[in-house]
Amino acid sequence: MIHDNLSVTAENHLAFAGLDTTELAREFGTPLMLLDVEKVRSKMQLYKKGLEEFFGNNSFPCYASKALSIKEIYRIAKSENIGIDVVSSGEIFTAKSVDFPLEKALFHGNNKTDFDVEFAIENGVGYFVADNVEEINAISKIATEKGVIQKILIRITPGIDPHTNAKITTGQVDSKFGTPIETGQAFEMVETALNAKSVELCGFHCHVGSQCFESSAFIDAVIIMLTFIRDVKNLFGYTAKILNLGGGYGVRYVESDPQIDIYENLKQVGSVFNETCEKLNLFKPQVILEPGRSIVADSGLTLYTCGSFKTIEGYKNYVSIDGGMTDNPRYALYGSNYTVYNASAVNSDRKVTATIAGRCCESGDIIQENVKITKPNRGDIIAVAVTGAYNYSMASNYNRITRPPIVAIDNKNAKIIVKRESFEDLIKNEI
Amino acid sequence: MIHDNLSVTAENHLAFAGLDTTELAREFGTPLMLLDVEKVRSKMQLYKKGLEEFFGNNSFPCYASKALSIKEIYRIAKSENIGIDVVSSGEIFTAKSVDFPLEKALFHGNNKTDFDVEFAIENGVGYFVADNVEEINAISKIATEKGVIQKILIRITPGIDPHTNAKITTGQVDSKFGTPIETGQAFEMVETALNAKSVELCGFHCHVGSQCFESSAFIDAVIIMLTFIRDVKNLFGYTAKILNLGGGYGVRYVESDPQIDIYENLKQVGSVFNETCEKLNLFKPQVILEPGRSIVADSGLTLYTCGSFKTIEGYKNYVSIDGGMTDNPRYALYGSNYTVYNASAVNSDRKVTATIAGRCCESGDIIQENVKITKPNRGDIIAVAVTGAYNYSMASNYNRITRPPIVAIDNKNAKIIVKRESFEDLIKNEI
Repeated sequence: MIHDNLSVTAENHLAFAGLDTTELAREFGTPLMLLDVEKVRSKMQLYKKGLEEFFGNNSFPCYASKALSIKEIYRIAKSENIGIDVVSSGEIFTAKSVDFPLEKALFHGNNKTDFDVEFAIENGVGYFVADNVEEINAISKIATEKGVIQKILIRITPGIDPHTNAKITTGQVDSKFGTPIETGQAFEMVETALNAKSVELCGFHCHVGSQCFESSAFIDAVIIMLTFIRDVKNLFGYTAKILNLGGGYGVRYVESDPQIDIYENLKQVGSVFNETCEKLNLFKPQVILEPGRSIVADSGLTLYTCGSFKTIEGYKNYVSIDGGMTDNPRYALYGSNYTVYNASAVNSDRKVTATIAGRCCESGDIIQENVKITKPNRGDIIAVAVTGAYNYSMASNYNRITRPPIVAIDNKNAKIIVKRESFEDLIKNEI
Repeated sequence: MIHDNLSVTAENHLAFAGLDTTELAREFGTPLMLLDVEKVRSKMQLYKKGLEEFFGNNSFPCYASKALSIKEIYRIAKSENIGIDVVSSGEIFTAKSVDFPLEKALFHGNNKTDFDVEFAIENGVGYFVADNVEEINAISKIATEKGVIQKILIRITPGIDPHTNAKITTGQVDSKFGTPIETGQAFEMVETALNAKSVELCGFHCHVGSQCFESSAFIDAVIIMLTFIRDVKNLFGYTAKILNLGGGYGVRYVESDPQIDIYENLKQVGSVFNETCEKLNLFKPQVILEPGRSIVADSGLTLYTCGSFKTIEGYKNYVSIDGGMTDNPRYALYGSNYTVYNASAVNSDRKVTATIAGRCCESGDIIQENVKITKPNRGDIIAVAVTGAYNYSMASNYNRITRPPIVAIDNKNAKIIVKRESFEDLIKNEI
């Protein structure tokens, strides 16, 4: 199986986090999203341990909650004593609703509105990760009005392409996010922040990408960012206290993806971090990482019911499911890979090759092409693995399809943490 | 301007349906979606007139409501006395909530669940457009249980690529939707339907694509489908009463797109329809068209507030707006074109070329690249035109961003028809 929380029962059914998925589908209906809470916790602990051990005791992970932003995930993050990264007032509101300590929250985004700035300051969000000059001015103005000093980091574009692991002249420098070092604009931003009235500059943030399966992009980022911190120190006499390296460790979606050892990777990056600080004669900044996908992706599984198996003779087989791009738009958006099982008959006969088609009236509503699967009948349960990240959080009501519930499995106990949307929900804001 | 409901005020502001958009933004906040009700009505009337005039008195349009499925649009369709095409129980529920006469509804989709079949039959949906054998069996079984006869059409794949206007051996034949004529499977479906117990076969449906700017694909479809109807008559002694030609007339999103004359196009297709019926010695079927996008797209406009104007020196300019792929995912999904204006200063100086970037923490959250626009400042209103179709209906809460309201403008009166989502809405189903 693609991850260790998946197995096959004696009845040839798919089990997830120790429970028979066909029974969960019967109990809760489909489409159904499952969340393996033990796996979420173990990943959070792994990042916390690795950061403390290899970067310094005060270093810590912030869960990048855009991957899955629901009340329960903030409860888990709170109980694991890690921080969070939030990207909107809506995420702040959700975290606050379960009393997450917002002083451990970092507020990201390329466009924070005045409302957002006020809302975040009023709710005591620890740090803004400031993207642009207009934002620093807005933070300073609103913080001044409220009589507070707001801590910020500045988002820097280090000019690294995570896929080539090289400094490049386009791509990462040309981004809607942050301010590039290469053009000199990053130093201007530092000056703006240092001169802003009610703003305390605490350090810098960068993000080299997502789905990185090795540490070289992070190692490049560490060296570039520490060098930038040294240059800023020399130019302005200001020493950054925090270095936030963003997110990005890769997740295994299909057998051909590598399975990365996060702890070992943190060790490698930590070693370069410590060496570089020494070499540049820098006081070690507190390091923050922002893992999102790698914490929740393989903690998730989605169950559907098969509606039809259609053979277009001479062309292709189609398995229609009762969900699709409305709960998982990642194939439609990015052509993402997924591993699919017939949960009702996992290993019987995986000789059929089929396209898994969603139920939307849209040709592009496909979950995956060329899946090897046991031929399903109407009523069989179809499972799509590794759907914990960027699935529920990106879900829509396209075609007026209601969003599925999420059932958390913790120590083999299943409980609803997000209820299925109702038809009444669809029209509740309509006149 | 790109459409006749857009103009420029004396203050150089963008006006839509006769109202100053900057004033609407001030009154209702941003992001804000506008709907020009007079334009919606005139398009519905145009299709109704053209179909009656060129295809026969009993022919009529069904609004393809997946383009924008909200209570108000069903009220308008009801008052214009046209049908609707629905694709889910959620759409049926929404139409029913405003007492739309569901006998004029056609129920589409490649995967109708048993729940959907029951729900549609219970609510008196006029016709199912049956996609596959499993569905016909499910309809027959459930209709039998309920002691009713359910009318259906069968979805046929005519094997036309709308963009090449040629019969092709892949593409349209290879579809998750319907049953191809080419492989002979369509005739098997007809036999299944004719033998099904509580099902009345009323005719056939096909859909040749979307964004067609000329009639040749429809003309091909008319000839192929009427020939199929003739062949079915010869084989089974069954004469179809309804021919549903689906949707698909194109919409002008940017200046380089043509502006099509729908009435003239209907005339052309109608002429071929009448000739072909005569030539094949067929009793003229009732014709249904399913326009969606072409009814609502240019009736819509979205307003945003600019958060920052960022120049990455040597690369590009970025205008950050307070919405993006959460309310309009079409650039992210399809690379769709849009026309963008600085509504606060439409024609002052459109010398700046910029990328319009959404507020999501995702590089792909772009509304449009290479837009010529008057350089905006934080606080300026940015308008994106032709957003009435597949924008609100595809909107998500990604990044926990709340969905915008829709304000209808009718005879220069603005009123809210969909309220802005609240933060409380975001967590209402969460435990």
